[in-house]
Amino acid sequence: MRKWNRQITLVARPEGSPKSTDFKLVETPVPTIGSGELLTRTIYLSLDPYMRGRMNEARGYADGVRLGDVMVGGTVSEVVDSNNTEYQIGDLVLGMDGWQEYAVSNGVGLRKLNSDDAPISTALGVLGMPGLSAYVGLLDIGKPRRDETVVVSAASGAVGAVVGQIAKIKGCRVIGVAGAQEKCDYVERQLGFDACVSRFDDEFPIALKEACPDGIDVYFENTGGKIFEAVLPLLNTFARVPICGRIAGYSGQNSDRPNLASYVMYLAIVKRLTFQGFLVFDHYDRESDFLRDVQVWIRAGQLVYREDILEGLEHAVEGFQGLLQGKNFGKLLVRVSEDPTL
Amino acid sequence: MRKWNRQITLVARPEGSPKSTDFKLVETPVPTIGSGELLTRTIYLSLDPYMRGRMNEARGYADGVRLGDVMVGGTVSEVVDSNNTEYQIGDLVLGMDGWQEYAVSNGVGLRKLNSDDAPISTALGVLGMPGLSAYVGLLDIGKPRRDETVVVSAASGAVGAVVGQIAKIKGCRVIGVAGAQEKCDYVERQLGFDACVSRFDDEFPIALKEACPDGIDVYFENTGGKIFEAVLPLLNTFARVPICGRIAGYSGQNSDRPNLASYVMYLAIVKRLTFQGFLVFDHYDRESDFLRDVQVWIRAGQLVYREDILEGLEHAVEGFQGLLQGKNFGKLLVRVSEDPTL
Repeated sequence: MRKWNRQITLVARPEGSPKSTDFKLVETPVPTIGSGELLTRTIYLSLDPYMRGRMNEARGYADGVRLGDVMVGGTVSEVVDSNNTEYQIGDLVLGMDGWQEYAVSNGVGLRKLNSDDAPISTALGVLGMPGLSAYVGLLDIGKPRRDETVVVSAASGAVGAVVGQIAKIKGCRVIGVAGAQEKCDYVERQLGFDACVSRFDDEFPIALKEACPDGIDVYFENTGGKIFEAVLPLLNTFARVPICGRIAGYSGQNSDRPNLASYVMYLAIVKRLTFQGFLVFDHYDRESDFLRDVQVWIRAGQLVYREDILEGLEHAVEGFQGLLQGKNFGKLLVRVSEDPTL
Repeated sequence: MRKWNRQITLVARPEGSPKSTDFKLVETPVPTIGSGELLTRTIYLSLDPYMRGRMNEARGYADGVRLGDVMVGGTVSEVVDSNNTEYQIGDLVLGMDGWQEYAVSNGVGLRKLNSDDAPISTALGVLGMPGLSAYVGLLDIGKPRRDETVVVSAASGAVGAVVGQIAKIKGCRVIGVAGAQEKCDYVERQLGFDACVSRFDDEFPIALKEACPDGIDVYFENTGGKIFEAVLPLLNTFARVPICGRIAGYSGQNSDRPNLASYVMYLAIVKRLTFQGFLVFDHYDRESDFLRDVQVWIRAGQLVYREDILEGLEHAVEGFQGLLQGKNFGKLLVRVSEDPTL
């Protein structure tokens, strides 16, 4: 076993977009385990937009990462040492070990993974937190009905891709919004959306309107910003807007047009709209339904997924910076150490 | 019977606050009735904030009033001539005859009133559209639970007063927001709210916060503007915001602070908020429950109401202008002709 544990710590609170100097790669001795504890080696680290919020002083739903602490993050790991009777060396587990190569835990909150069910990396994506976000946000909050029009932003991303494919399975007309043309092509051809509009289109609001001739019944909000503004006038009476994320605003780079809030509230009345924010952490009571349904859909070929895997913990910061700019293509992961199941 | 029918017509689309020159008082012959029709004489005309929207070109939920047409409005009237077997001369009816002294109808959409049940004017207020708005907005959308904190703006108004009193009946802590001190006193002393904060208070956001030491679980939105902005940071996790009206914006006089919409959407996620606009017209399936409950509460002395009655159709315009400025005190009505039940 290696004696040194590489970790990425947060050393400054980013203003706007995170800079590489806001983080520091440090090496500390691999910890030894005490009674009831186990040591895990990180195989995959998940990079997700919510992490930007954790870089701020706490004011939201979860504590901010303290300066000097290891950045938080979901992980798939292998147990490499154990004084815990529940876990054996070689077990594969889903956890929240953060941006580091090794971690000690008492086993609470870990979930064992079976690599026969699905590739273990999917526990961080389509069969993990992003997939569950898509499932509960679309089905429980968006409540789409057959033949309704569903629009989802960040459509090629970890959440958006699942939202749109479930909406297709439920018989909806589905329009994605993505960035680069190759992503739009992927959304239409591989994910099977009815259309995908590029937010880079010079006349994006017009292109979106043309793609939604019957208006929009469910808008699954991942981005905010100009996409949100273009969606608003297209919303139908009784439309639902599950608010999952606002990536355009996470680094403070977006700026509302004047009196946008009053316009939104006016529309909410005359069109009887519902805007509902949600956090996946409140919805783990739906996890078993979610896993059952999505595994069926994957096996049936109705739901596909794509991963964008960076090699080595040292690429986590640039990977995360790119995520906020939409540079990843598929669920963004860092392979921190070799995947023994491959 | 008089031979002339006085009517108030809309002759120009107001920009911002309606001006008296946007309306015209005209006299036309009292119409004669045809087969199956009846003629009604208006006793009470209701003045309500939604009318401001009808003065615009249609772009919302309902047609705008056409230039030259009589302004729309709810009315309580007496049948003065009838070729309709359902209605006899002397019947009292609730209808939508608008800002005029006489109207002809075929009886569709009218509802007979019994003056033994309640004063007939209440069919336009506490037992009418404003009361039903309060009932469904609070109970069906706000879903308050015992011991939660409910805040309602325009608390002494036709809707707000009912919202707060029902919330008290349901065991909530209830805070009103109103304007003039005499209104705040009325809300606390006569309506029994736990407190009422004046929006004219120099430190209104601080006063509101002090009145809500446990935060806000339901904000019943009637006003928008600075009240909405002061409420936002006080909303608790899983708070609900039924959006009934935005009177501060109806004449375009309010102006959001920069990036308010993005802040609202950010809060919606981290606090899992629901913002839901509604229109009472969608909820008449709840009318019988509403009438049953509110009549019981009125008889039990648990729910009181106040009317602000102007004498004569010629005062409708200035009355409506005052309504948008919060000058009325209680449900605003115009007594267009003598109430035979008084």
